[in-house]
Amino acid sequence: MTVFLAGGTGTPKLLAGARRSLDPTDVTVVGNTGDDVELGGLLVCPDVDTVLFDAAGVLDRDTWWGIADDTAETHEELQRLSESIGIGAEPRYLPDDQQTAGRRIARWRRFSAAGEFMHIGDRDRAVHLLRTSLLDEGHSITETTRRLADAFDLDLDLLPMSDDPVASIIHTPSGAMHFQEFWVANRGEPVVEDVEFRGAADATTTEPVLDAIREGPIVIGPSNPVTSIGPMLALDDFRAALDDATVVAVSPFVEDEVFSGPAAKLMDAVGYEPSTRGVADAYPFADAFVLDVEDGMELDRPVVRTDTKMDDDADAARVWRACEHALDLAAAATADETIDDPSAEVS
Amino acid sequence: MTVFLAGGTGTPKLLAGARRSLDPTDVTVVGNTGDDVELGGLLVCPDVDTVLFDAAGVLDRDTWWGIADDTAETHEELQRLSESIGIGAEPRYLPDDQQTAGRRIARWRRFSAAGEFMHIGDRDRAVHLLRTSLLDEGHSITETTRRLADAFDLDLDLLPMSDDPVASIIHTPSGAMHFQEFWVANRGEPVVEDVEFRGAADATTTEPVLDAIREGPIVIGPSNPVTSIGPMLALDDFRAALDDATVVAVSPFVEDEVFSGPAAKLMDAVGYEPSTRGVADAYPFADAFVLDVEDGMELDRPVVRTDTKMDDDADAARVWRACEHALDLAAAATADETIDDPSAEVS
Repeated sequence: MTVFLAGGTGTPKLLAGARRSLDPTDVTVVGNTGDDVELGGLLVCPDVDTVLFDAAGVLDRDTWWGIADDTAETHEELQRLSESIGIGAEPRYLPDDQQTAGRRIARWRRFSAAGEFMHIGDRDRAVHLLRTSLLDEGHSITETTRRLADAFDLDLDLLPMSDDPVASIIHTPSGAMHFQEFWVANRGEPVVEDVEFRGAADATTTEPVLDAIREGPIVIGPSNPVTSIGPMLALDDFRAALDDATVVAVSPFVEDEVFSGPAAKLMDAVGYEPSTRGVADAYPFADAFVLDVEDGMELDRPVVRTDTKMDDDADAARVWRACEHALDLAAAATADETIDDPSAEVS
Repeated sequence: MTVFLAGGTGTPKLLAGARRSLDPTDVTVVGNTGDDVELGGLLVCPDVDTVLFDAAGVLDRDTWWGIADDTAETHEELQRLSESIGIGAEPRYLPDDQQTAGRRIARWRRFSAAGEFMHIGDRDRAVHLLRTSLLDEGHSITETTRRLADAFDLDLDLLPMSDDPVASIIHTPSGAMHFQEFWVANRGEPVVEDVEFRGAADATTTEPVLDAIREGPIVIGPSNPVTSIGPMLALDDFRAALDDATVVAVSPFVEDEVFSGPAAKLMDAVGYEPSTRGVADAYPFADAFVLDVEDGMELDRPVVRTDTKMDDDADAARVWRACEHALDLAAAATADETIDDPSAEVS
């Protein structure tokens, strides 16, 4: 069993490469749900859905979200109707009393569909509709995700990190906003003062996730450590389970340069150096790292280097081979075995 | 000002004919909301939408619901996903505690999107999304409908009958079910023991509707008197306002034959003769009637006869001319004027 902790891009890309050499029935993916959003009454799980759609073979690989060749009649009509009554495409966060009424899992993440600010394809929306309805029928998000995975005939296990509401809230000088408002609507431009995982103190992970972590090992792809993996680490029982597991992480940085996304800015805001060294600080439970060949940073744990840029599945397969090597080093380190060469290179 | 009380087919068809000769800015349509349903978290207003779409020129005139040439990618994907996990297309009414949580207007009408049993087109769905979100933003259904009408550039006034939840519930030997479950999913086949307008005792109509009725006159097309007009009559203040208004109604029957729909069965269940005479009993406030030329029933109020079958707008225009004639008779009757010929024929 290999357990991947997944945000929306880095780890899913790595997973696509790893699936070439792993038996998918031995793969469990734990998906971040901190970025989930309720849009027009429908719960959207961007990170979980990227894994779901890619494993189902329907992911739009140009964007790494949504379904390939999807239409967007509903989205375009929503935009047209909204504009014709003077509502722009900006996010319309619903009033506080609307954030907590009804569906518990939708707390702190409810946006109006008016001026729908995220692009939702028509078939994509069917997934959000079915998910939301299965939740309303009384199923947990874990069970609901399992049924969606069945509907797409998935051969790997896909688990949300928690059945409780945990929302990634970005604090900016102009106020707090949900991560999707910060990232999609404001293109990650606002100054970040702090990142809050609202609800995490009262949330736990699930038994299936704890079982998977216990079985391990754990692989964290080049995900954003703050908003992709951070929500998982904010769950006390999740974090504690990692301390006892064999964990390998791929740095999303090349020294202090990030491949893509808001990781640098977010790490700086929460007090980590925006670099590979900061990633190592954020992951004290990691037993080995995979770094880019151009990344000369020294870490206090074993390192395997390779070209960590992943433009296609062949790239991802190379990074996965480096992960396999790092897992060997991590297992040896966990077992306190002497490692002759704690730094290796995979090409 | 002419005020039409509208269900989903009869009155909207009549209205299409009347619009040829009426200034649309002098037309108000009060729409039945008893048949409204919440499907997958989206409030669907079938009767209001038929008027909305037809007045906007986008109605599918083959079915008299939905948008012409609409795609249904989301609906078809929902059906496919649901079937692949063993959920059929039967209605999945949500648990009791889910019926009343959150959105007040959605009470007693909440269905899962799993196995979506009503056909919802993609652009059609955009309307339900926008409506639901405007409600969640804090607007009433009256205000929300006004904004949708603006979005479609409507030239007539479209008013829901109430801002309160009123749900048409059909009691059958196998239990109570929402009207849409009875009509769409079960094709109107179950035995009807009673019809309940749940919530009506605690509901009122709105000031804009009362103002329109006071200004009048009122036209009731060949609608189903029970589930199309009945929910309006179940509102005490609505019913009282009608007593003081000039009202003309078109019978949906030719003697005891109904043109289409479940009117006969429903009238029988609530104690009215399923015939034109029963319609007259159900509408004691009506001052004159339009009947079919083949309908020989004698009524205690003035009658205008014409061919009431409406297959196209020319037919509807003819029925509208009969309504105009009946309005004259009704006005005379209301004013206690002597009517030389209380029965006339329009061809």
